[in-house]
Amino acid sequence: MAHKKVTLGIEIGGTNTSFGLVDILGNCFVESRIPTRLNESPESLFERLFKKFNKIYKEKSSEYELLGIGIGAPSANYYKGTVEYSSNLNWVYVNIKDMVKKYYDLPIVIANDANAAALGEMKFGVAKKMKNFIQLTLSRGFGSGIVVDGNILYGSDGFAGEIGHTIVEKNGRSCGCGRKGCLETYVSTGGLIRTYYELLSKSNEISVLKEFRPSELTSDLILKAAIHGDKLALATFENTGQILGEALANVVAYLNPEAIILSEGIAVAGDLLLVPTKKHMEKNMLNLFQGKVEILLSGLVKGNVAILGASALSWHEIQKKKNIS
Amino acid sequence: MAHKKVTLGIEIGGTNTSFGLVDILGNCFVESRIPTRLNESPESLFERLFKKFNKIYKEKSSEYELLGIGIGAPSANYYKGTVEYSSNLNWVYVNIKDMVKKYYDLPIVIANDANAAALGEMKFGVAKKMKNFIQLTLSRGFGSGIVVDGNILYGSDGFAGEIGHTIVEKNGRSCGCGRKGCLETYVSTGGLIRTYYELLSKSNEISVLKEFRPSELTSDLILKAAIHGDKLALATFENTGQILGEALANVVAYLNPEAIILSEGIAVAGDLLLVPTKKHMEKNMLNLFQGKVEILLSGLVKGNVAILGASALSWHEIQKKKNIS
Repeated sequence: MAHKKVTLGIEIGGTNTSFGLVDILGNCFVESRIPTRLNESPESLFERLFKKFNKIYKEKSSEYELLGIGIGAPSANYYKGTVEYSSNLNWVYVNIKDMVKKYYDLPIVIANDANAAALGEMKFGVAKKMKNFIQLTLSRGFGSGIVVDGNILYGSDGFAGEIGHTIVEKNGRSCGCGRKGCLETYVSTGGLIRTYYELLSKSNEISVLKEFRPSELTSDLILKAAIHGDKLALATFENTGQILGEALANVVAYLNPEAIILSEGIAVAGDLLLVPTKKHMEKNMLNLFQGKVEILLSGLVKGNVAILGASALSWHEIQKKKNIS
Repeated sequence: MAHKKVTLGIEIGGTNTSFGLVDILGNCFVESRIPTRLNESPESLFERLFKKFNKIYKEKSSEYELLGIGIGAPSANYYKGTVEYSSNLNWVYVNIKDMVKKYYDLPIVIANDANAAALGEMKFGVAKKMKNFIQLTLSRGFGSGIVVDGNILYGSDGFAGEIGHTIVEKNGRSCGCGRKGCLETYVSTGGLIRTYYELLSKSNEISVLKEFRPSELTSDLILKAAIHGDKLALATFENTGQILGEALANVVAYLNPEAIILSEGIAVAGDLLLVPTKKHMEKNMLNLFQGKVEILLSGLVKGNVAILGASALSWHEIQKKKNIS
């Protein structure tokens, strides 16, 4: 039986760490996950991870040829192979590459989760034929991965692509980063909720969502209400799409991408978000870009998106090396 | 006598078209220029240009080995070798590459003037050791060339880097592009003048510049007044630096550059512009970028800057090919 060439994708999240083997077509094998446990050390995370992985993998290792390891994590630095000052993981400085090398002496690549997601779309999702696009993850935060000429834009220190922390409103909403008016405070699951209350404060419309305490309200509840025709909930998506669309008009002026891909969080609202976003992007865009930039929803299957992205990091490096040699 | 390896740099401007031979160290030879004459066809421009160039060059051609031709022009498209819809040149669609090929069958590369200027800084100016930086030309327009990982960011259609046409003020100043609030309407020679009148309208400060008609006022006059301590003129630079600094804080979030280089137009004001720009950039920047991004003045000698930039386009392609083969 022929060996299946695969890379190991590992996605470290605040709650769980997922992993799986992924072939060049995006088929995922030996998929599993463990709790991240932020109260334990990163060393113990990898000890538990590889214990579990080896147990599954060793029985089947004759079927696979493992070519490399890709790791997606919040605040990961591609150049240094580290995770630094991660508020999500409570890690101050961890050299992930060195840690993983002890278990498998293979090419290891690590990048932040938004960049992994972008490469996932390029290798396995809707961006398969694209060389210039932007991937936005609109969940608790506003993650962005920028692909330029077929490669992730890492910038000078590996921190490029913080579009969620561009200021779109002077003296606007307070952001977790300590500043005011960041795009993330408007376009994210939390931003959607804040916009609902902003509209509520100005409107005398009835709304089914008034029956929920602020501590109970979620972006999913606003979505459900909007689907059922709740006017304030609908206006919340319209308003959020406008802010996102205006921001994207500027994104396009910087980067001239073929497409902007939205995934997770408030992007699951589909057209409720996409329609106003497109409208306001076109309306605010420089004429030479008008009608040229697609806004798409992620093409990755929910569930193992994160593993596909992490694995894509490794596949991308392997293919780059092949092209050079 | 050894042949000096050179590339021919041609910069097409609205008034004049300059050209010269440039070696790898940035030494410029056989430098000259002709009037562009927008009422004549582009064909006739190149006919006149190469007639003049050949006349000078043929006597000295034994001294040089001409490796390629680089052309900088407004609204030039790197991918297609064209100039398209150039309001500055009155050209709707001109295939420059084909036109020039008739005279010299050498590798020809064309890009917009802002990108040429960025490569000029990388090959011959203050960005010699940099791989990630942004070059801003702050003259009549706000030109920007973005360098990522040692290459110009062209984007999907070759139009990336329109930072001057990002909207920084909703319903702000009317822009030549037909929209409102573009950065260019605040940070450019014309933008500086508009800011002077905005401050004049709000202030009761005395100002020597009140003696000039609006049709006479120039950015140079505002600079001279500021140097002589005119309070409104000083406030005009302070205000312009604030707007630029706030915009640059966002630029950094996108691109994580090592440095931002300012040249021409209002950048000749030096510290009068740089000091407030730096202050407001740092104040508005995400903490992880603070203190890391330099703001520099162009390192190219005035006069042949444009030729150096155009020539750098060609040198860059030659060096890229060398690295691959």
